[in-house]
Amino acid sequence: MAPSRYVGLLAFVAASILPSGVLALWPIPTNLETGTTALTVSPSFYFDVQVEGAPADLYEAVDQAQYYLETDQLGRLVVGRGANDTAALASAKTLSCLQLSLTSSATVEPIASEAVKPLGTRSEEYELTIPADGSTATLTANSTLGLYRGLTTFNQLFYYYGGVTYTLLAPIAITDTPAYPFRGLALDTSRNYYPVTDILRTLDAMSWVKINTFHWHITDSQSFPLEVAQYPELAMNGAYSATEVYTESDIQYIVQYAGARGIDVLMEIDTPGHTAIIGATYPDYVACFDATPWATYANEPPAGQLRFALPEVMNFTASLLVDIANTLPSCYISTGGDELNTNCYVNDTLTQMQLNSTNTTLNDALSTFTQTTHNALIATGKTPVVWEEMVLDWNITLSNETIVMVWISSEDALAVVEKGFRIVQVPSNYFYLDCGGGGWLGDYPAGNSWCDPFKTWSEAYTFDPLANLTESQYSLVLGGQQALWSEQSGPQNLDPIVWPRAAASAEIFWSAQPGGTPLNVTEALPRLHDIRYRMVQRGLNPIQLQPQWCALRPDACDLTA
Amino acid sequence: MAPSRYVGLLAFVAASILPSGVLALWPIPTNLETGTTALTVSPSFYFDVQVEGAPADLYEAVDQAQYYLETDQLGRLVVGRGANDTAALASAKTLSCLQLSLTSSATVEPIASEAVKPLGTRSEEYELTIPADGSTATLTANSTLGLYRGLTTFNQLFYYYGGVTYTLLAPIAITDTPAYPFRGLALDTSRNYYPVTDILRTLDAMSWVKINTFHWHITDSQSFPLEVAQYPELAMNGAYSATEVYTESDIQYIVQYAGARGIDVLMEIDTPGHTAIIGATYPDYVACFDATPWATYANEPPAGQLRFALPEVMNFTASLLVDIANTLPSCYISTGGDELNTNCYVNDTLTQMQLNSTNTTLNDALSTFTQTTHNALIATGKTPVVWEEMVLDWNITLSNETIVMVWISSEDALAVVEKGFRIVQVPSNYFYLDCGGGGWLGDYPAGNSWCDPFKTWSEAYTFDPLANLTESQYSLVLGGQQALWSEQSGPQNLDPIVWPRAAASAEIFWSAQPGGTPLNVTEALPRLHDIRYRMVQRGLNPIQLQPQWCALRPDACDLTA
Repeated sequence: MAPSRYVGLLAFVAASILPSGVLALWPIPTNLETGTTALTVSPSFYFDVQVEGAPADLYEAVDQAQYYLETDQLGRLVVGRGANDTAALASAKTLSCLQLSLTSSATVEPIASEAVKPLGTRSEEYELTIPADGSTATLTANSTLGLYRGLTTFNQLFYYYGGVTYTLLAPIAITDTPAYPFRGLALDTSRNYYPVTDILRTLDAMSWVKINTFHWHITDSQSFPLEVAQYPELAMNGAYSATEVYTESDIQYIVQYAGARGIDVLMEIDTPGHTAIIGATYPDYVACFDATPWATYANEPPAGQLRFALPEVMNFTASLLVDIANTLPSCYISTGGDELNTNCYVNDTLTQMQLNSTNTTLNDALSTFTQTTHNALIATGKTPVVWEEMVLDWNITLSNETIVMVWISSEDALAVVEKGFRIVQVPSNYFYLDCGGGGWLGDYPAGNSWCDPFKTWSEAYTFDPLANLTESQYSLVLGGQQALWSEQSGPQNLDPIVWPRAAASAEIFWSAQPGGTPLNVTEALPRLHDIRYRMVQRGLNPIQLQPQWCALRPDACDLTA
Repeated sequence: MAPSRYVGLLAFVAASILPSGVLALWPIPTNLETGTTALTVSPSFYFDVQVEGAPADLYEAVDQAQYYLETDQLGRLVVGRGANDTAALASAKTLSCLQLSLTSSATVEPIASEAVKPLGTRSEEYELTIPADGSTATLTANSTLGLYRGLTTFNQLFYYYGGVTYTLLAPIAITDTPAYPFRGLALDTSRNYYPVTDILRTLDAMSWVKINTFHWHITDSQSFPLEVAQYPELAMNGAYSATEVYTESDIQYIVQYAGARGIDVLMEIDTPGHTAIIGATYPDYVACFDATPWATYANEPPAGQLRFALPEVMNFTASLLVDIANTLPSCYISTGGDELNTNCYVNDTLTQMQLNSTNTTLNDALSTFTQTTHNALIATGKTPVVWEEMVLDWNITLSNETIVMVWISSEDALAVVEKGFRIVQVPSNYFYLDCGGGGWLGDYPAGNSWCDPFKTWSEAYTFDPLANLTESQYSLVLGGQQALWSEQSGPQNLDPIVWPRAAASAEIFWSAQPGGTPLNVTEALPRLHDIRYRMVQRGLNPIQLQPQWCALRPDACDLTA
């Protein structure tokens, strides 16, 4: 097998000398060898699962792969969409079977079980071989999750024209392993609500590009759409309506659906800021509740933050977090911690009384609050995740195991890493999908997006996860993700604002091996077009990246063409 | 009836003292008087068409209004969505009938006929009265088109909660007439193709906010999706595929569908620039065809412009335009004329030979070309429409009747008007819906949108159609429109990128009477939320303007709240 640095070169060569647009894999595998022989897929093609005691979700994954193979019907992105391939296909051999098997050392578990193991202990790698002579193709892995990733790649290998599904690149040999263990997508379902079907569709799309974490920012100051059995009033008083709620069974269904697609659900209950709506149920627990002018007390309306200094609020929050965490299989849960506004507490009588009576500072109260909530979570086996302010803006005690998400700027990663924490890269200046949508506050027509301009896929794609870090710090970078904050988004624009852009980070954190060949936007664009058109074929609504004229003519719409 | 300047004040008062969110009309009528009495719509409500010889499209419009009345089921945008209205509704009178009639002087014609009359001669005004006592409501107008506009308003008056459709504002008296005759929406279907169903859905949405012109930028350099009977090769060689074509019957269906909704289809065949794809059929007619580097010859790839100096190209273009114009009922057709790049002709042998042999300049050849094509169109009864460069960048002879679209900047309107031409306002710095989407060229990750930033609805809404003009010039402003250019758009994001933003110009050009009360973004936002949620209810996918928390609490998310 070629060393990994050879791969970028091979991909580049393929894009140059082969019929353009044929190399459609996304994310690009670690090692890829292709030939130049046409091979068609037999109408009676089948997947042969040679896995003793294979779990149900592996069979479901195979059924899904079979469905995509039959229904993708994606024409190659060239003028004519594959009409010129007909001659080559006339004499092509036919592929009839892909055999799936696990390595001898593997333990047979459901995909969903492997998907929620601790970061760094999941096995996602696989090996896929497709001979040119029509003999059985093989897919092997160390886990069912690895087989699932391999099936995803297998589905991306084929085009369709005139009733025939085929590749022009046989034989194909792939070995593939992700560069980073955390490859996520964050979605805010509080500012605006998304029906369950939208989330399921998003999970499907995530799985197509091997994203393995759904960071679910489920609650915020605007609404609390999460049904919690022990605290039903939070959703009753805090959801936008009785139908705009994620019920306990919704959550379980989503978690199971995600797991079967190799996706871990990392839920975030943002505290102690971003919690105004809790005041609709527990007014005594929330300071500056709906106070005006809101801009004095919060980054956006409505104002309102937990009175974290109060023991009863600490206990309530710990209990709430634990109750939620206990319903989720993930090893991780985020307690948020961003944008805490101290003005909210300056004139808050209950907070000031508490601080005075205990001779405590706000900072120390926050530390106690965070230790209380985090220790409760750690006791249930969870590892807490927080936003960067918890380590950069406050002097509080956090477990070394805590994972820190960098969001304000890519420049902040170094400072967090220097404190010894593992990080997830969500830099707003590369990865915020909502930037560039204009200002949304009322009576402010001149207002622009706070994080202008729009982050194009290619801008996101140039993000270097290891920038400014020393080699010894590399291992602290767990991965990263793009994020959709929903002030101006909802089910109506979910697909086009997220896709295919969110595929940019998916490839960075799968394919950009530290020290390997850097990713290249020019090489990537035709492949991104390809996965986008495949997404359309599967019923998603990803935005057009360029005029179709450009999509059919790789490089013709480059700035320098 | 109150004078028109009273209306803005009344609307403002209503938004302040009545239950918030009830005044949901968009665009706001010229004169509006409302009471405070609850009135429910009878389950057996019917429309009584008292129009002798009423045309079929009026009956269809009534059926549509009945359908919306029954299915909109829009809850008021307040916390509880109308749950608190139940008490007031218990004793409310019931409305059973809306009677439609024409004034005695009216000629009975189809809506579609009135909709394509010359600008300034269509009658869109209407009078709508809804008594508070449950007696018959009345809608009168001078034309079926006016009745259609009144039905649109009628549908916006009602909310739904718990099985009851109602208003809290009876009695209601409205007289309404548009401020400007041209209120459009421009869509580019060449850079990317939109299926016919997307265009029909867009026409529906346009009708909901009384937009009366669909400016169809149907062809450009990237694709020629228009089937022309006399020139079938243009689409055969120029459409993205055989299925991405607007056939002659598609065009007729769209025109009829638009007409029945009070919408004139203004088709644009952009010439002599923006025509590269014609070179796929007539290579001799196109200079710098697909020349590289494209940036030398065109604003975007591919390069290629008609060799307008050649007599055979003039004749071909005139013939093509006339053949297309003859299939359309509109009085208007656009010949484009933007972004003509002179570099394309500097080394073009055929053009230079022609100029030399006739001792003609490029400018004079363009004048001859334009006169040839325009005179041919005028002979068929059409009035040509052009982009601003035709009068600002070139010294060519144009009929005084020519309508000029201002697009490069709102600052350019004055210069065009000073030349005596009527204008349509499409300023990119307010009205381009594609701005802010980031750069789309390949190999240019740092590239941003040329017309950054994103134009929010409220920014667009502050546009003053008469800015910099003297009162004597006001009548030259026919109206205006927002525009979607499709380099980065397609069916996948059509709804959310256009709606509800395109409602901004719809209201400006209906409601902003010259010299009347200026429009106000703070007053407008709750109404825009309302029409947006109604659009969602009708199956459109307009983007969220704010978190729903804000939509339910008018003004709470203002910058200054």
